[in-house]
Amino acid sequence: MCGPRRPRGTYNPGVLTALNYLGIAAFAASGALMGVRKRLDAFAIWTLAVLTGLGGGIARDVMLGVTPPLSFKGWENLTVATATAAVVFFFHPQFGAVRRTVDVLDAFGVALFTSTGALVALHSGTSLFAAALIGVTTGLGGGILRDVLVNEVPLLIQSGEMVAIPALAGAGLTVAIDDLGGGQDWALVVGTAVAFGFRMLVMWRGWSAPQAPSDLWGTVAARVRRGGRRR
Amino acid sequence: MCGPRRPRGTYNPGVLTALNYLGIAAFAASGALMGVRKRLDAFAIWTLAVLTGLGGGIARDVMLGVTPPLSFKGWENLTVATATAAVVFFFHPQFGAVRRTVDVLDAFGVALFTSTGALVALHSGTSLFAAALIGVTTGLGGGILRDVLVNEVPLLIQSGEMVAIPALAGAGLTVAIDDLGGGQDWALVVGTAVAFGFRMLVMWRGWSAPQAPSDLWGTVAARVRRGGRRR
Amino acid sequence: MCGPRRPRGTYNPGVLTALNYLGIAAFAASGALMGVRKRLDAFAIWTLAVLTGLGGGIARDVMLGVTPPLSFKGWENLTVATATAAVVFFFHPQFGAVRRTVDVLDAFGVALFTSTGALVALHSGTSLFAAALIGVTTGLGGGILRDVLVNEVPLLIQSGEMVAIPALAGAGLTVAIDDLGGGQDWALVVGTAVAFGFRMLVMWRGWSAPQAPSDLWGTVAARVRRGGRRR
Repeated sequence: MCGPRRPRGTYNPGVLTALNYLGIAAFAASGALMGVRKRLDAFAIWTLAVLTGLGGGIARDVMLGVTPPLSFKGWENLTVATATAAVVFFFHPQFGAVRRTVDVLDAFGVALFTSTGALVALHSGTSLFAAALIGVTTGLGGGILRDVLVNEVPLLIQSGEMVAIPALAGAGLTVAIDDLGGGQDWALVVGTAVAFGFRMLVMWRGWSAPQAPSDLWGTVAARVRRGGRRR
Repeated sequence: MCGPRRPRGTYNPGVLTALNYLGIAAFAASGALMGVRKRLDAFAIWTLAVLTGLGGGIARDVMLGVTPPLSFKGWENLTVATATAAVVFFFHPQFGAVRRTVDVLDAFGVALFTSTGALVALHSGTSLFAAALIGVTTGLGGGILRDVLVNEVPLLIQSGEMVAIPALAGAGLTVAIDDLGGGQDWALVVGTAVAFGFRMLVMWRGWSAPQAPSDLWGTVAARVRRGGRRR
Repeated sequence: MCGPRRPRGTYNPGVLTALNYLGIAAFAASGALMGVRKRLDAFAIWTLAVLTGLGGGIARDVMLGVTPPLSFKGWENLTVATATAAVVFFFHPQFGAVRRTVDVLDAFGVALFTSTGALVALHSGTSLFAAALIGVTTGLGGGILRDVLVNEVPLLIQSGEMVAIPALAGAGLTVAIDDLGGGQDWALVVGTAVAFGFRMLVMWRGWSAPQAPSDLWGTVAARVRRGGRRR
C-alpha cells in the first residue's frame, strides 16, 4: 500500500497482513461450507470460496481507486483462499453444524475485514468517516456475494442477524483508536474483537430488533381523538 | 463536483443537490418498504434502505473514477437514507399499497438519479454518449441491488415494466438540453419529468412490449413456399 | 488502449477488436435467449442482452481503473449487443434447444472475453498474474450478472459445469504466449480456442468433479485405530 501517501506515522504491516489472511480464510471457509451444504462439486466449492474470500477486498480496492485490486497483484490471497477451500472440502464434518458454522465464520470474517478495510482506507488518505464506511463495505462485500450466488437472501438483511451494526461499531472503533494515536495494532485488534464479540452476543442471546409497527399513525390518531373527546 | 475539470460554464449545485437528496430518499423509501413487505426487522430495513438509496450513486462514482465515492465522503447522503428509513418504518401504512408504492418510488428514483447522474458525468468531462449511459447506470443500480438482495427478479427485466427505455429518454434529454445551452437546471428538471412521466404512463396504461414470436422463420418460410407453389 | 503505457512492441487491435465484438455478441445472445426462455417481453430481453454482453468488459475496465468504461465511450459495443438481441428475438427457434444453446454461447463468450480481457490488462501494464485474473473476471462477469438477474444459481458454481478452470487455462495461455513473444494474435486465438475447447469437452463428456467426502477424518481415524489394534 502507498508509502508516499501514508500520513500517519510509521506503518508496520505485520498485524494488518496477518488479520487480512485470517479474514480471507474465514470468508473462504464460509463460502466453501456453503458449497458443501448446497452439494456442489469440488471446482464449484473452490470457485465459491475464492469469490467469497476475495470479494470484500476487491470491492474495497475499487472504491479506493487501487487498480488492479491487491488480490490480483500477488499470489498470496488466492493461495490462502484455495488452501482453505481444500481443508474445508476434506474435513468439513469437523467444522460442526454447517449453518451455525457459516454464521460464525461470517461474523469473524466481517469483523476482520471491517477493521483491516477501515485501516487500509485511512492510510490511503481518506477521511475518518469514509474509512469507517469503506471498512464496513469490505466486511460485508464477500458475504453478500456468497449469498447472492447461491440464491439465498443475504445474512446481512435477514431479521435477527443484525450484521451491519456490529460492523459499524468495529469500524468506528478502529478509526477512532488509530486517529487518537492508540496505534494501528491496537486499533485492529480492538476493532476486530468488538465487532466479533458484539455480533456473537447478538447471535447467542438471540437479540433481534422489532418489525415495523402495523399502524402507528392510526393508533396515535385514535388516542388523540379519544383524548380530545374526554376533555 | 470538481471545479477545474468543469468545462461547461458556471456550475450552481443547488438543483442538482436537491434532486440528488430526493432521489436517495425515493430509493431508500422503496428499499425500506420492500423490507417491511418481507417482514424484516428494523436493522435489516435500515440496511436495505441505505444500500438501495446509495447504491446507484456509488456505481456512478466508481465508473467515473471518483474514489472514494461521494456517499462515503460526507454524512449527508447516509443521513437522508437513514431518516427516510425511519419515516417508512413508523408510517409505512400511510404509503398505501406496498407493491404499487415501491414501483412508483422506484420510478421516481430512477428518473432523478438518471438525470443527476448524467449531469454529474457530463461535468466531470465525459462524452455526451457516456454521460447518458452513466446516468442510466446510476438510475438503475440501486433498484437492481434492492431486488437482488431480497431475491426477486429485478423490476428492470420484468415484462411489462419497461424500466430502461424511459430512463434512456430522460438521460438523453438531460444531456441534450445541457449541451445545447439550455442550462443545467432545465436539463435536470425536464430530464427527470420526462423519465418519470414516461414510466408512469407505461404503468398507468399497462403498456407492454410483445414477447418473442414463436417461429417467425418457419412462418415466413412457409408463406414463401406457398407463394412459390401458387405462381 | 493507451499508447504510452504499452510496453510490449507494436499493437495491432484488429484481432482483439474482432474477438471483443464476437464475445459481446455471444454473451448478448445468451442473455437474450435466457430472456426468451423466461418469457420476458422485447424490452426486458434487450436489457438483459445488453447487461450480459457489456457486463464483463465494464468489470474489467473498473478493475483496471479505465473510467468511464470503454463500453460507455463508443457506440459500437452497445450496437453489437442491441443487434444481437434483435436477431435472437426474431429467430430464437433457429438457435436450437434453449438451455444447451445458452450454455454453448456462454462457453464461447467466456473463452473470448477471458482471452481479450487478459491481453487488454497486460497491455495496460499489469503483471502477468494480474492480467490472467482480470481476464477470468472479464470472462465470468457477464454470465454471473445474467444468472443473478433472472434469479438462477450462476452456471459458474453449478456442479458439473467446471466454468472457472477452462477460463483459467485460457487466460494463462494467452498471457504466456504474449509474454514469450508469440505475438498477440496467436495469444488471443490459442487462448480462446483452448478455453472454449476445454469447456466444450467438459460439457460433451459430462466430466464432473467429486463432491466433498462425507467423513474423511472419521474414516481415516477408524482405519488408523483398527491398524493399531491389529499390530
